[in-house]
Formats: sequence, structure tokens, C-alpha cells
Amino acid sequence: MSLTFHLDFASSEARAGRLITPHGEVETPVFMPVGTVASVKGVPQETLEELGVQILLANTYHLYLRPGVTTVRQMGGLHRFMAWPRAILTDSGGFQVFSLNDLRKVTDEGVTFRSHLDGSTHFFSPESAMEAQIALGADIIMAFDECTEYPADAARTRASMELTLRWAERSKKYFEDHKAEVPWNAAGEIARATPVPATQALFGIVQGGMDHKLRRESAARTVEIGFPGYAIGGLSVGEPRALTREIVEATIAHLPSDKPRYLMGVGTPEEIVDYACLGVDMMDCVLPTRAARHGLLFTSEGKVSIKQARYAQDETPLDPNCGCRVCRRYSRAYLRHLYASNEVLAQGLNTVHNLSFYLDTMRRVRHAIRLGERSRFLSDVWSRPKP
Amino acid sequence: MSLTFHLDFASSEARAGRLITPHGEVETPVFMPVGTVASVKGVPQETLEELGVQILLANTYHLYLRPGVTTVRQMGGLHRFMAWPRAILTDSGGFQVFSLNDLRKVTDEGVTFRSHLDGSTHFFSPESAMEAQIALGADIIMAFDECTEYPADAARTRASMELTLRWAERSKKYFEDHKAEVPWNAAGEIARATPVPATQALFGIVQGGMDHKLRRESAARTVEIGFPGYAIGGLSVGEPRALTREIVEATIAHLPSDKPRYLMGVGTPEEIVDYACLGVDMMDCVLPTRAARHGLLFTSEGKVSIKQARYAQDETPLDPNCGCRVCRRYSRAYLRHLYASNEVLAQGLNTVHNLSFYLDTMRRVRHAIRLGERSRFLSDVWSRPKP
Repeated sequence: MSLTFHLDFASSEARAGRLITPHGEVETPVFMPVGTVASVKGVPQETLEELGVQILLANTYHLYLRPGVTTVRQMGGLHRFMAWPRAILTDSGGFQVFSLNDLRKVTDEGVTFRSHLDGSTHFFSPESAMEAQIALGADIIMAFDECTEYPADAARTRASMELTLRWAERSKKYFEDHKAEVPWNAAGEIARATPVPATQALFGIVQGGMDHKLRRESAARTVEIGFPGYAIGGLSVGEPRALTREIVEATIAHLPSDKPRYLMGVGTPEEIVDYACLGVDMMDCVLPTRAARHGLLFTSEGKVSIKQARYAQDETPLDPNCGCRVCRRYSRAYLRHLYASNEVLAQGLNTVHNLSFYLDTMRRVRHAIRLGERSRFLSDVWSRPKP
Repeated sequence: MSLTFHLDFASSEARAGRLITPHGEVETPVFMPVGTVASVKGVPQETLEELGVQILLANTYHLYLRPGVTTVRQMGGLHRFMAWPRAILTDSGGFQVFSLNDLRKVTDEGVTFRSHLDGSTHFFSPESAMEAQIALGADIIMAFDECTEYPADAARTRASMELTLRWAERSKKYFEDHKAEVPWNAAGEIARATPVPATQALFGIVQGGMDHKLRRESAARTVEIGFPGYAIGGLSVGEPRALTREIVEATIAHLPSDKPRYLMGVGTPEEIVDYACLGVDMMDCVLPTRAARHGLLFTSEGKVSIKQARYAQDETPLDPNCGCRVCRRYSRAYLRHLYASNEVLAQGLNTVHNLSFYLDTMRRVRHAIRLGERSRFLSDVWSRPKP
């Protein structure tokens, strides 16, 4: 048993379902908060549970550098290490190598890169990226890919896509040969709870830049290799948002409807609703957590930049239509004061609210899909009852 | 009604009681966590409630500078501003002016000082310090005093003590004339709940440096002015700990037994137990919160410097004898990883544990006093059942 995907409801492109992972069920479409180094910055795990988070994303690149995959493996994997019993997804490290390293060197074998922490030299191949992700032990792990830069010409885009396809095959082969090594399998925790030994699920990643034909080819050939789920990578890399949407729509058309579809690295609250409407099942983005740390808060009445002096004596809650623990207790004036005073609590409270807003948004999207109200999505989701 | 102090149990010097404030009951002896600018750094108020915090300390000096007392007054006072319905104590600002300002200028009228934030010039007098503390609206406020530096010669110590006594009279006069201006009285919240309008309680502060006779005189003359509670100030300013204890013991002997005694700015876990044994009812210190932010954690098995590599793969809880939410969930390895990775969650979790340790310690001290086991205090409090 690695992963089961149940599609419960579908209306037009949009669909609602459930991912059954070795660490619990995940209702889809789902937004996955990012816990880069095994922590959603400023928010304890018990608060994430309270928010209803069913799956977290953690970054292989960061965890590989600190605390190191050996440490996490010896601690029984990420779930035990970070005391998070629910589902986890790790990326392959490819995107961070791409975005944090100007000096990376890519060959067919893999990528040589320098640590952003201390400048030390490291090497990731499909095999070593799988080895790292098996050691981390997330429920869903990702094939090692090259994220094609934007813009890129036709020849470069094809070459990059071909590389990703070769690496997908190598990722799958290594994973199939080594998947029994997942630390929680050795620990026997999951094995006792399920009739057959539980393993991780490896997803493939579709590349192909901004070229419809290459996206179609990448999708078809990735599906041919065969994975329990498919990600759309190489987007949100600087291209216009209209183009992102166009490529998402074009790529989804070539993905099997019975497998989960994961759009990597998006988006704003409006965008995640839109992508769910197009049939995306999983998304992740640093936006809600990173924006919170900069005092940018998402509310049912629009964005609030809490640092502004206009909120200094505003006794109202951040979002009168939000039921999160921050909006239930604190005023805009207090949140503004914490931010203006560089108090560390500002980060925690702001992040809890923004995550709550994202998770509530997806909850209402799932509800609308289950009611078959796909056509009224955007209006439903964005017009909440006023107090 | 401003404050009632019930002494429930006393064995030898040590005593256990209850402070009844307009914002709830406080069991004594009590350790008050410090929330400098209306936030205990990194810990949300709901977690402080869960820890059993009954009274918080906030700093007038910091709040005066940011967000400003006018803002807090207009928000209904500190309780409403920071969404903390339980008791609050504010200091007078005198100690911060003393410790954060090398360029302060003291006259009989008051103190001119510069903001540590922007260098702007400000002036505190007994009257303006009372005005600020009435606007902030804490349940217990402190007379404006001069904290005598250490070391100081006899003439300087006497002059400083005399100044504090003149300021104590002026503080009391201003307070008596203006106490009806407390913002929650205007708001009527407390007035509705109690038969007579509730007001704040102003405590006097005993100075007198390290001189037994001056301490005795300062105590006698402060008691003559008359306050509902008495603080021992001017300690923990660089003197040896044995001397601190000696002066505490000598000063307590001259304070009335039916009024709460507040020892300002102490101490380590061992010290707060010791001072409670001597008959101190209230204490505050930045040590548990500041040490937490530097990775120094107090446990039943001694101090733990969580940054050390020896904890990198330590799966055990920080303190096996602690029931706080951090020790129930997270391993030393995870806490060490958060600290080493500069994750902001490290501050929050470490602070929750250290506060829990301090509050548990005082809980056990109160229990021991109630059982009349004063003589077995130190051994009782420090020998917990091993798992």
C-alpha cells in the first residue's frame, strides 16, 4: 500500500476526492502548507492540526543540508522527527538547486551545487535524491527533475524536458529497488496497522516549458513511465500568470483523470480556487507563510498590510468573517503593534491567520464541488456572509 | 476595590495566599512572566492561559515608547489591547531608564532620558509615570523610584533612598487624585461586575542599596506613606547573590506581614524557591524567557543548552518529568534542529517550556507551604519522581 486516490465528486473539470496515505487521509483539492526545514515557520504542530492541515510539504534540499538525511532517518523519518503524525510530501530538491544556486552545474548524471549555508559543494542525482527522500520518509515523494528556466528557447526546452524524462525513469528505478528502506517501515509502525507493508508513493513531474506540444509530449511519456500521481512543474518561474493558467489547462488535458494532479508552487487565494476549478488536486506555495512574515494578510475583504499606521487603533478583528484563533482573540491594533515592534509573536499569529484563510478557502471549494456548483465557484467562494 | 490579599497558610517565614485583583485571583507566591511590550516573546496569550499564568508583567518604559500610552488608553487599557483578561502588573519605568540609558539626567523633579529606539528625549516624573501607568491600566502599578546603582557609597545610597521616598509620596498623591481615570473604569466593564468601582493598586518600593540600616529606614518610611503592597527594588544590579539574599531577608523583616511583598527582577529556579521560603509573595524575571531564546533550558535534571551537538539525535523529551506541551510532543533532537536552523519556532517552544518549569516550580512551592512542609522545601521541590 502506498497511496490510494478516490475521486468522490467531479463536475466538469473540477473534482473532489481523497488521498489515502500511510499517514492518514487527505481531502482534495488540497493546499499544502510549506514547512521548509520540518517547521512551518512560527507555528507549532498542534496548531497546524487545529487548523485542519492534513498534509505538509517539506524541502529535501534544506533538510539534506540541515539536519542531514542520516539524522532524520535515524530518528525514524520526518514524521517522528518533527512529531507530525499526518501526511507529508517532500519535493526532490531540484527546484531549490535551480532557484538558490547560480553556480550549479548540470550534466546527464546529475547536478553539482553549492550550499547556500556554507558554500560547500554537493551533488544530487536522481538516485541520490531518491535515497534522500526515502530516508526522510515522506508519504509522497517527487521524481528528480530539472525545472526549465523562463524564458527558454525551443531547443533548450526540449533538451531539458528529455533530461527530466531520463531522470524520471532513473528515479522510478531507484525507488522501486529501494522503497522497502523507508524508515517507518523498518520501525514497523505502519506495517502493524496495515495488512501489507506500507511504502511511499513516487510522483512524476511534467515539464516542457511554455510549449503546449512539449507539455503534451512530456505528460504522455511521464504517464508511460507510470506513477501513482503527476505533478506539473516548471511554472511560477517568472512567466505571466495568464500563461501559467494556459499551460496548466493544456497539461491537465493530457493527464489521467484517475490519478492525483499536483500543481507545484502556486498561488494566490484567487489562483488556487481557479486551479482547483481546472481540475488540480494538490497545490503548495510559500505565499501565505512568507507574506505573513512580511505583514501581508489575506482576508475576506481583501489584502491587509498590517504595518500601516491606519490600523494603530483599529479594535476590529483582522477578518470579521474568519473564525481562526487569531481573529477570535486579537485586534488589528494589537497585530499592528506586534509587527511594528518586531515582536516574534507577529510572525506566528500572522502565519496562523493566512494559513487558516487558505485552508478555509479550499474547504469551501471542496464543498462547492461536492454540491456540484462548479460554475458558481468563484462567486460562492469569494462572497461570504457578512456579520 | 483595588486589591485584597488573603494569607491562607504560613509556616515560619514562608506563606501562601491569594491576591484578589480586578482581573482575577492570583495564587501566591507567584512568578510573573515578563511581557515587555505587551507580549511574552513568541508565546500567544491562549498558551499563557493554558500554562496557568494568572498575572503578567509589562514594562511601562517600553509601552510608553511603543505603541504609546495614549493608544493603549484609547484601546481600553492593556487588558483589552493585548486580549489578556487576567491580572497585569506594570513597573514604573524607573528601572529601564536606569538600565537602558547611559545619558539619563536625574533631578529632584524627575529623569530626562533618551529613547533606546530613536534617541529622542523624554522626561519621567513621579506624576508622569503614574499618568502613564493609569493609562495602561494594569491591576498593580509601581511607584516611580530611583534604582540605586551597585556599588554606591553611603552618602549616595542615602540620597538616592531619600529621593525615592519623596517620589513615593508624589506617586501616591498623583495616583489618589487620578485613580478614577483608569480606562477600564471608564469602560464600565469592571464597575458592572463589582459593587464599588474598581481601581488599580499602587505598590511602594523599598530602596537603600546594600545597607541594612538604610533598608530598614526605607521600609519603615515607605510603610508610613502607606501602600497596599511593597516591593524590594535595587537588587539584582550586579551584587553577589549571597548579598542579594541577605538584603532580601533583612528587608522582609521590616515589612508588614499582612501585605504582599514583591521582590523585583529575580531569579533562577533555585533562587525563586529560596525567596519564597523567606516570605516573598511575588517575583518577576526575564531569565526564563530570555534564556529560552538563547537555547538555555531549565529542566528537573538540570540546565540543558539545546544548541549542543550531543542532542542532535536525542529522541527523549527535553524534561522527562515535565508535562508541558513541548515535552509531551517534541524530542530534544527536534528542538536542537530548530535552534540550529534559526527557526522562529525554537523561541516559542523553548519559552513555553521554561515558563512551564518556573510555574510548576512555584505551584509545588505553594503546595509545600500549604502542607506546612517549609523545612522540606528545597528537597521536595527539587526531587521529582523519576520515570
